[in-house]
Amino acid sequence: MVNVAVLGYGTVGSGVYEVLTQNKEVISKRVGDEVNVKYVLDLREFPGDPVESVLVHDFDIILNDPEVDIVAEAMGGLNPAYKFAKATLEAGKNYCTSNKELVAKYGPELIALAEKMNKNFLFEASVGGGIPIIRPLNESLTGDNITEISGILNGTTNFILTKMDKEGSSFDDVLKEAQALGYAEKDPTADVEGYDACRKIAILSSLAYGSHVDFEDIYTEGITKITDVDFKYTKKMNKSIKLFGKSKNVNGKIYAMVAPFMIDDEHPLFSVNGVKNGILCKGPVIDDIMFYGSGAGKLPTASAVVADVIEEARYLNSHIKMVWEPEKIEIADIKTDENKYFVRVEGNADAKLAEVKAAFGEVEVVTVDDVTDEFAFITNVMAHEKYEEAAAKVSGIKQRIRMA
Amino acid sequence: MVNVAVLGYGTVGSGVYEVLTQNKEVISKRVGDEVNVKYVLDLREFPGDPVESVLVHDFDIILNDPEVDIVAEAMGGLNPAYKFAKATLEAGKNYCTSNKELVAKYGPELIALAEKMNKNFLFEASVGGGIPIIRPLNESLTGDNITEISGILNGTTNFILTKMDKEGSSFDDVLKEAQALGYAEKDPTADVEGYDACRKIAILSSLAYGSHVDFEDIYTEGITKITDVDFKYTKKMNKSIKLFGKSKNVNGKIYAMVAPFMIDDEHPLFSVNGVKNGILCKGPVIDDIMFYGSGAGKLPTASAVVADVIEEARYLNSHIKMVWEPEKIEIADIKTDENKYFVRVEGNADAKLAEVKAAFGEVEVVTVDDVTDEFAFITNVMAHEKYEEAAAKVSGIKQRIRMA
Repeated sequence: MVNVAVLGYGTVGSGVYEVLTQNKEVISKRVGDEVNVKYVLDLREFPGDPVESVLVHDFDIILNDPEVDIVAEAMGGLNPAYKFAKATLEAGKNYCTSNKELVAKYGPELIALAEKMNKNFLFEASVGGGIPIIRPLNESLTGDNITEISGILNGTTNFILTKMDKEGSSFDDVLKEAQALGYAEKDPTADVEGYDACRKIAILSSLAYGSHVDFEDIYTEGITKITDVDFKYTKKMNKSIKLFGKSKNVNGKIYAMVAPFMIDDEHPLFSVNGVKNGILCKGPVIDDIMFYGSGAGKLPTASAVVADVIEEARYLNSHIKMVWEPEKIEIADIKTDENKYFVRVEGNADAKLAEVKAAFGEVEVVTVDDVTDEFAFITNVMAHEKYEEAAAKVSGIKQRIRMA
Repeated sequence: MVNVAVLGYGTVGSGVYEVLTQNKEVISKRVGDEVNVKYVLDLREFPGDPVESVLVHDFDIILNDPEVDIVAEAMGGLNPAYKFAKATLEAGKNYCTSNKELVAKYGPELIALAEKMNKNFLFEASVGGGIPIIRPLNESLTGDNITEISGILNGTTNFILTKMDKEGSSFDDVLKEAQALGYAEKDPTADVEGYDACRKIAILSSLAYGSHVDFEDIYTEGITKITDVDFKYTKKMNKSIKLFGKSKNVNGKIYAMVAPFMIDDEHPLFSVNGVKNGILCKGPVIDDIMFYGSGAGKLPTASAVVADVIEEARYLNSHIKMVWEPEKIEIADIKTDENKYFVRVEGNADAKLAEVKAAFGEVEVVTVDDVTDEFAFITNVMAHEKYEEAAAKVSGIKQRIRMA
């Protein structure tokens, strides 16, 4: 029998408990041994809930029970998760988690500790919810030097952008709707400013390139400046706007960023709508590979935690190799990052085009019938600092969005 | 040092050799040991090719060399691949393969043999080319009872259907173009009649449901009856037609089939065009998960073989658990499989609708401006045998396509 303790009985943790108990038969078959939830840790009481029979309030009960083989954490945050993870691995138990903050900050240290103890520290649920992406990066895309990862990694912002796109609504209106539906938190900062996606692209990039990408080094731009007017232009051009966590290897320089990108309808991530997530990986050998699914939600996220529990139950006493060296990768300066830009300017295109061309060279002008007193243009591929220099020479710029 | 032998120096085999040699540094880093190609087996000579230095013509040299840890096969066909696979595992070496015929027919036997020898028999490249799908099914979607797999599993037929859709061309014209481009073989039967997709959905279904799905039990319908006129209707309805390998668990009954399906533009596989493949998995816990990428081609397919080589190099002497029991799953009779049908009929809708309604009940009529002397209708959800009964009562039916 393999004994599991679940830390946290919130949305994800209760999903993990539910899946492990309701699908016990198929899970045990896939492990080749009975998988049993021995404890669930939460500070709260849940009177009448079936979890009561295994509920504990003291982590030490779990840590000191030699029968516990696997600790599955779904609490989030660094404290006490970091302390719990370290203590679990040092006690010779396996640990898996949905906690992106923990993984982004302490991933390499905890992987090294797991390797030293011949145990496992797994974190499939930390990125992309139910989408298998950590394990494919670690075990399936391993023959290639990955050159690009572009991910729609945050369901809240994708829900907002999709609604703005399809219904022409404003950011503020859709945010309120998302909050009412429970898709966005009361304080939506972590989502809409891109901080959540930032930790996730840091994790994916670290695994893709094999060394530590520090999330604090990642240029992060949210979606709060995207307006319903931007989507009038994208509609005309058969394009859309998505918040990407993106990293790329350009001749050995690694770029990483979170920013809204304008993409056309041939882009593999174009149809990733609503709260869905999608992750595109590129490399000279693999070509384009895309993973799509539910990036959040109780059961999909729980399915990823449970997959880690199953994997750890199969390898209770042997370390699954994972390459994430602690040495920090130097992230290239965003100033040198090259993109085309979509730019909106006050005024009339005919009157202002000479000024724009003097600054940007040849551009492609875009106008939309029911948007007056402004126009848009698309630049050639240019470095961010060159864009800034040129933009400083044009008056009345209202918007600029990178294009992918 | 881990020594690898590659069997077959055709398209995929030469790709495997190229990736293992050109990406040797990153591959060895991910394994934690140097990975070296010691032999390539092919009956042919390749004068001037770098492979010459490791080329052998006799499999026994590989089999009898105790330094060979991993045999990576890319020959295809059952003979001699089955003999080679068995002998390799019995000799205490690991085997991986891109050979779908071998896996569909002998998968459970070779997995059991690998388990007995504490070695591995891996086959990521046998389905979906470069798309990671075997390992995710075996290691990531393990917490759920999968209820449906729908896959665009054959690049040749998807190329043909996409061209017919986008350009309005006929099946025969596009087939000739695909043959000229090397996307279709001179004898295209295995692709266009769905036999290739049939083996692939058998493999995926076996892993999803944990017991053997015999490809010979799978109802298989190809794309040779799909015409340019069908796509005039799909265009009007914002739909498309894709060849699916599909299996589903309906209240414990497992259905498996290969057939063209009409899907709408909200379907996750709608944008899988050209030679790309896409695989959608559904379950109550995972929700929808979709995998997309290059389903064929030298390097993408090689990337999957190389991922298996890396995995086997990491686990040289321990078996990676895989649940594919030899007991055959009884596939439910296609007669009881329920779908909506798209049906085209000779004649005029007004004149003929009474006859159609007498047989099918209420239907949705579809007409297209430049298609005369016929019309189409969409049925309610009905079992295949009920469809056949109703269709026998209507004269002049020219086409029927399942809808998903």
